[in-house]
Amino acid sequence: MPAVFYLAEIEKALGSFDPLPLIEEGFVAYSRGQVVVPPVGEMIFEDPPGDVHIKYGYIKSDDWYVIKIASGFYDNPKAGLPSGDGLMLLFSQKTGLLDSVFLERGHLTNVRTAAAGAVAAKYLAPGKIRRVGVLGAGVQGRMQLDYLRKVREFEEAVVWGTGEEELEAYRRDMEGRGFTVRTTLDAEEVAASSAVIVTCTPSTRPLLRADWIRPGTHITAVGSDTSEKQELDPAILAKADRVVVDSLSQSELRGEVFKAVRAGAIGRERLVELGRVIAEERLRRASDEEITVADLTGVAVQDIQICKAVRLHLP
Amino acid sequence: MPAVFYLAEIEKALGSFDPLPLIEEGFVAYSRGQVVVPPVGEMIFEDPPGDVHIKYGYIKSDDWYVIKIASGFYDNPKAGLPSGDGLMLLFSQKTGLLDSVFLERGHLTNVRTAAAGAVAAKYLAPGKIRRVGVLGAGVQGRMQLDYLRKVREFEEAVVWGTGEEELEAYRRDMEGRGFTVRTTLDAEEVAASSAVIVTCTPSTRPLLRADWIRPGTHITAVGSDTSEKQELDPAILAKADRVVVDSLSQSELRGEVFKAVRAGAIGRERLVELGRVIAEERLRRASDEEITVADLTGVAVQDIQICKAVRLHLP
Repeated sequence: MPAVFYLAEIEKALGSFDPLPLIEEGFVAYSRGQVVVPPVGEMIFEDPPGDVHIKYGYIKSDDWYVIKIASGFYDNPKAGLPSGDGLMLLFSQKTGLLDSVFLERGHLTNVRTAAAGAVAAKYLAPGKIRRVGVLGAGVQGRMQLDYLRKVREFEEAVVWGTGEEELEAYRRDMEGRGFTVRTTLDAEEVAASSAVIVTCTPSTRPLLRADWIRPGTHITAVGSDTSEKQELDPAILAKADRVVVDSLSQSELRGEVFKAVRAGAIGRERLVELGRVIAEERLRRASDEEITVADLTGVAVQDIQICKAVRLHLP
Repeated sequence: MPAVFYLAEIEKALGSFDPLPLIEEGFVAYSRGQVVVPPVGEMIFEDPPGDVHIKYGYIKSDDWYVIKIASGFYDNPKAGLPSGDGLMLLFSQKTGLLDSVFLERGHLTNVRTAAAGAVAAKYLAPGKIRRVGVLGAGVQGRMQLDYLRKVREFEEAVVWGTGEEELEAYRRDMEGRGFTVRTTLDAEEVAASSAVIVTCTPSTRPLLRADWIRPGTHITAVGSDTSEKQELDPAILAKADRVVVDSLSQSELRGEVFKAVRAGAIGRERLVELGRVIAEERLRRASDEEITVADLTGVAVQDIQICKAVRLHLP
C-alpha cells in the first residue's frame, strides 16, 4: 500500500535533516549525464489563466523515479486560494510500484529551489559576507535567507520589494526568525551594499543594472524559469567572471542566460554547469574580486533528491 | 485538502453506477475535437525491464483535468508482485488545485478499457448474439464479458487461452459470476462459433486468420496498444465492412490499424472514429451480414471520464 504524506508531516521531516548534500549530489550526477530527465509535460489553460507542468525523471542505477505535478493559476488569490499547488510521487525503479504520495502543495519545490540557491552560494560566493541582498519579498525571498544561513554567516539582509506593506511583513517575519533586515524600494541600494544578491521575483524586465554591480559580488538568479521572465541586465552576465547554470540544456530555452545569449551579451562557451562547479575546485570563485552569476531554472533532479531525502526521514 | 481514495472504496463506487454513458460522451467529445490530449510522457527501464506512461488531458470547458500514471514491470510476478501499477489524479481546471488521488492500482484503466469494449459492441455488434468469443483469459478477458453483458444478452462465452490451467481458472471464476463458459486452445474454434469476438492478449503475432471470420461477426481488438503488438491478420481488416478506431491519431502509430495500413491491407480513408459512430446512426452496422472491427488503443478521455464518474459516486 503506498504511503500518503501531508504537508505537516513533510514540514516536520524537513526540519530533521539538511537537504544540501543530497541536492549537491543530484547536481553532480546531472552534470555527469547520470540523470534521465524527459521533456516536461505541459497544459496551458486560458479561462481562467493557468499552467500545469509535469516534471519527472530518475538517476540511473538509483532505486527510485519521481514524478512532480505543479500548477500556477494566477487568479486564485482573488478567490482567497493559493496560486500554486503541487504534489510529488515516488516510485520504485525496480518494480514500478508507487511508494509514496507527497501532498506537499508546492512546498518541496520551494525547498529544493532555496537549497539550490544555497549550494550556488556555497561554491561561488565570497568567503566573508556582511550583507545579503534579496530581490523579491515573497515566500522564496524568505526561504533563500533561511537556506543561505546554512552555508554563510552574514550580519544583515537588504530586501527590495514593490510595496511598503509586503516589505514590512517580510521584515517582521524574518526578524522573528533571527535575521536583521533592512528594506528598500530602490534596487540600486541592494546592489550597492550586498556581497551576495539573490533575485526571486516573477519579473519580465531587468531589475539590476550592470553598472551597479561591484567587484566581488555573487548573484544567484532564481526567479526566471521561462523564456519570458528576466531579472538581470544581460550586461551583468557579460561583466561576470563566471556564469554558472544549473542545466546547460534548459538555459537554451529559459532564464537569464537564454536572454543574455539572445541579446548577444555572452557566448554559450562561457557557461559552466553547477554540478561541475561542485565537483571541480578550479571552476569555483578564485578571488574576492570576481563577479559570479548563477542562473537557476530548476531541474527535475532536485525534485528527485528532495523527495528521496524526505522519504528517508519520514516514519 | 485533497481526498485520497484507495482501491476498496473505488471498487465500491464502481458498483453503484454504469460508466458506459460517460465513456460514450467522452468518445463523442474526443471525436468532435473538444478534448486536449498532449503527447504521452514515457520512461523506459532496462534492468529490470519496465515502462511508465503518463497520460493526461482535459475536455475543454469542463471542470476537471486528469493525470494518469501507469507502469508495467514484467518481472514483478517472479517476486510475487503485480506487473502493473497505476494511479489517477483529478484536478480542477478552474484553480489547478488537486481534488482527489485515486490509488486504483490500474483497476480504473481496466474498467475504462472494458467499458470501451462494451461501447464498441453496443454500436457495432449484431443485435442477436448466441456466443461471445474471448481471446485471452486474463483480467481484461474477464472484464470484457462483465461489461459486454450490460449491452447484449448472450448464452455462452467461448474462451481461448494458452494453457489449460489459466483456462480452468477463468471458467471457474466466470461461472461463479453467472456466465456459461466453454474453453479452447484452438482460436479457430472461437471464430467459428462466435458472433462477437474480443481479443485481449499481449500478442505480437496475429491470432485470428481472415478465412476463419464469418459474415456478421464483430471483432473488438483491445490487446494491441503499441507499435509491436498485434492480434489480427491485416486481411481481417481488409475483409471488414467497417473499421472503427478509438483515436485516428493514435492509430497512425499503434494498434491493429497501424499494422494493417503498414502492410498495405487497408487505406486510412476507410477509418472512422468511435465517437462519430456513437453520434451518427448511419455509421453503425447496417445489416446482420456485415463484418465489423473496432481497434481500441486506449485514449486519455476514457481516463478523464472514469475518474470523474467515480469521484461523483464517492463520499
